[in-house]
Amino acid sequence: MNFTVIAQDPACAARLGKIGTPHGEVLTPVFMPVGTQGTVKTLTPEQVAGLGAQIILGNTYHLYLRPGHRLIQQLGGLHRFMNWHGPILTDSGGFQIYSLGALRTITEEGAHFQSHIDGSRHFLSPESAVEIQEALGSDIMMCLDECLSYPAERDEIEKSLARTARWALRCKESRRREGSALFGIVQGGVYPDLRQRSVESLTEIGFDGYALGGLSVGEPKEKMLESLAAAAPLLPSSRPRYLMGVGTPEDLVEGVYRGIDMFDCVMPTRSARNGLLFTNGQKVVIKNARYREDGSPIDSTCDCYTCRNYSRAYLRHLYVAGEILAMVLNTIHNLRYYLRLMERIRDAVRDGRYSDFRRRFLEEQKAADVGREVSAGPA
Amino acid sequence: MNFTVIAQDPACAARLGKIGTPHGEVLTPVFMPVGTQGTVKTLTPEQVAGLGAQIILGNTYHLYLRPGHRLIQQLGGLHRFMNWHGPILTDSGGFQIYSLGALRTITEEGAHFQSHIDGSRHFLSPESAVEIQEALGSDIMMCLDECLSYPAERDEIEKSLARTARWALRCKESRRREGSALFGIVQGGVYPDLRQRSVESLTEIGFDGYALGGLSVGEPKEKMLESLAAAAPLLPSSRPRYLMGVGTPEDLVEGVYRGIDMFDCVMPTRSARNGLLFTNGQKVVIKNARYREDGSPIDSTCDCYTCRNYSRAYLRHLYVAGEILAMVLNTIHNLRYYLRLMERIRDAVRDGRYSDFRRRFLEEQKAADVGREVSAGPA
Repeated sequence: MNFTVIAQDPACAARLGKIGTPHGEVLTPVFMPVGTQGTVKTLTPEQVAGLGAQIILGNTYHLYLRPGHRLIQQLGGLHRFMNWHGPILTDSGGFQIYSLGALRTITEEGAHFQSHIDGSRHFLSPESAVEIQEALGSDIMMCLDECLSYPAERDEIEKSLARTARWALRCKESRRREGSALFGIVQGGVYPDLRQRSVESLTEIGFDGYALGGLSVGEPKEKMLESLAAAAPLLPSSRPRYLMGVGTPEDLVEGVYRGIDMFDCVMPTRSARNGLLFTNGQKVVIKNARYREDGSPIDSTCDCYTCRNYSRAYLRHLYVAGEILAMVLNTIHNLRYYLRLMERIRDAVRDGRYSDFRRRFLEEQKAADVGREVSAGPA
Repeated sequence: MNFTVIAQDPACAARLGKIGTPHGEVLTPVFMPVGTQGTVKTLTPEQVAGLGAQIILGNTYHLYLRPGHRLIQQLGGLHRFMNWHGPILTDSGGFQIYSLGALRTITEEGAHFQSHIDGSRHFLSPESAVEIQEALGSDIMMCLDECLSYPAERDEIEKSLARTARWALRCKESRRREGSALFGIVQGGVYPDLRQRSVESLTEIGFDGYALGGLSVGEPKEKMLESLAAAAPLLPSSRPRYLMGVGTPEDLVEGVYRGIDMFDCVMPTRSARNGLLFTNGQKVVIKNARYREDGSPIDSTCDCYTCRNYSRAYLRHLYVAGEILAMVLNTIHNLRYYLRLMERIRDAVRDGRYSDFRRRFLEEQKAADVGREVSAGPA
């Protein structure tokens, strides 16, 4: 994997970059749609690529449990299995395991956990996390990290980031396969000095890229942005910086402003399936009665297939009637909204006007929020 | 609407034809995918057209209840509402109402019924059935008929087909809109003389096409084929003949052999959503464990998107994991199977070798059935 910074915004940390992978190049800042179980939910890979997705994310935890990484490897790897021929980043499985709560135990050796599907017992170590990701044929792998929930005590965080560094080294040393990049994950909660310490121990080992972990895990939005502002500048500028599991459109705009290159989040796809549609102005809750006779598209400025061909009235009808096509069309719109936002972000960085872009975007969002409060009648 | 017979098979009643509609031509024999609630379930209209669908069916009962024919009319008609630009045939709503059982009462005036959605009370007459279909902008409308379940007494059937003829006349007389064709529906159960009487009363009124109703309503397969063989030759050869709600691939082959031009059925789409996939050999129940590691496509002779890009193992994984893409990919395959079968049927009729085609097809199906019995082990 290689990474080149193409342009650096003169007035903030935003930058335009290019990541080279065995399955093609990725322009950054980039948003990665989430393909949890070997599919970006509801869409064919051609539809996903057609929306402008350059790279997608696969979930190691889910694919390990079902259908199993060995089976996927035997059938030619994840790219072939799911018919996605662009780059794939895989997470380490750690985050899902931490989410299991009572069903897991963490030791220095690794994580013991029970499957959410059938309760069967499993063990994930730094070594097996890499082994699984290599079997999947991942382009960009993530180290297994220990992820604490918010709030956590300072001494807990200290212990955890030390363990995360030891695990990161074990991950790096267990690599067997050429071609897959490996990213380290910086922990440290909301403490800048702990973030600094985590960055130092990881850069000493040396990784192809660095992710900020332990953000967007329940802390207030201001805390998240504060921690991000403190932690992002600590990451080496010569490597891609990845803000895991984030976030809202505003979060993406704020993240890029602070120098983040990569994002992933289930928000656009999950919201779509729940009938919540993104626009530059208000968020559209498509089931609302106010859209019953609305012949206009979700967003008249959107260039997506859904907005070019369907009315809000039709989308509301499909949603209310429980039709699967509702989820497909909504997912197309929301993903396109996110991916088009990233295109606009990259254009702004390329032109050296990102600070201005950010300011206007946040103002527009705020105005739309106020407008929504004013216009919110019975729906 | 116009209809031209292009070729007549020399050895049986099969024929190749062409129906002209305001939204384009339809080559017959044709299979019409069912778009119950304004969507062929799970697929975009472009996907449906790409599979070779020439015309789809819309359900008057469902669209009348939700979102309402007036709303669809106000938004430019059903074609625009659902973004399908080819021909649409609409049923009369009658069949769905008969299926409601205790929730409906039939009088000479029409059908009183309760909505399956909210229990609200409604009334459908021959006149309103046409009014609704005209509001939808249907290319081919169906008369409201009285449909008895099987078995029914001869005198019941006699009364019913007389009413069906009176209703058909009322339907014809209530037409207001140019461009929509109207088909009559022949009843008469399994009695050839009653079928004859029904045909006579309908042809006297005169319709753009004729459908065989009251078949495939619970009678044994042999009875259905027997009634079909007796009734089909009675229909005027200068008009399209439509066998409603039928059926299996074998039924289509047998129907064409007896002179049927048009078919519709939910079987390919509904089976797909339940993981039952059609092939020329055995039917594939995709969730079976035997497909867990199967790297081959559903059907290696199939030219569909699903078979060109995905393994049975992947499709099984999606299905077992409850992924929506499973339903999309399965629907693509099953619809393509049906539509490709119709292409092969039309080719065989064009070449005057349909009897031979039918014999081989039925032999292959029989062999596959026997093979299935022999090979059926634990799955």
